[in-house]
Amino acid sequence: MIIGDPYSRDCPTRKVLDRIADKWAVLVLGLLMGGPMRFNQLRRTVDGISQKMLSQTLKSLERDGLVSRKAFATVPVTVEYAITPLGQTLADTVDALRVWAETHMEAVTAHQQRYDAGAASGA
Amino acid sequence: MIIGDPYSRDCPTRKVLDRIADKWAVLVLGLLMGGPMRFNQLRRTVDGISQKMLSQTLKSLERDGLVSRKAFATVPVTVEYAITPLGQTLADTVDALRVWAETHMEAVTAHQQRYDAGAASGA
Repeated sequence: MIIGDPYSRDCPTRKVLDRIADKWAVLVLGLLMGGPMRFNQLRRTVDGISQKMLSQTLKSLERDGLVSRKAFATVPVTVEYAITPLGQTLADTVDALRVWAETHMEAVTAHQQRYDAGAASGA
Repeated sequence: MIIGDPYSRDCPTRKVLDRIADKWAVLVLGLLMGGPMRFNQLRRTVDGISQKMLSQTLKSLERDGLVSRKAFATVPVTVEYAITPLGQTLADTVDALRVWAETHMEAVTAHQQRYDAGAASGA
């Protein structure tokens, strides 16, 4: 195993890539760039994420040191999630991915339509 | 639905993000930045990818217009995959993700160990 080879299954770099090349992680980190948020705010904003999936995503991001979790002694208890300094170093990279998707969405959709039309006609 | 809102489940931008925030797509695009490659070369280089998963990844990347497929009339037929100009615009972004993983691998691993130690001691 070469250290720092994401193409090798057992390399820690690959494990990190597994975590961050994940759409829910991308969406959650993108939101937290704008400031800390509570669980329910995140849940409402990320359309289609289940409670379980959001919990898992936040737990993994916390475990990776990318997001911090702070509980406030309110009734009921309030939990707030914030991006860490390490998470911030990732945020720009992740945000570039989101921007790419927004910028090239139409080109990709056009390609898909041509591809599907070709497949339908047997070309 | 707002056009260009990746947080909305039905937005095309979200669908694009679903595709590119995918570790296999990231690894395959990263390899093709270095030049065209054959299916079996890719299969050997991306440790842990199954034949079926590599086929699906390449098909999706081709459908999205990010990768082109060229068949040569050899016996047996040779198929080569190359990155397209559109794919190239994505490649730098994707590569930054890989570089981040390589650079911060140790910090993330250290965080995970502390987190797991805390969880084990019930902290």
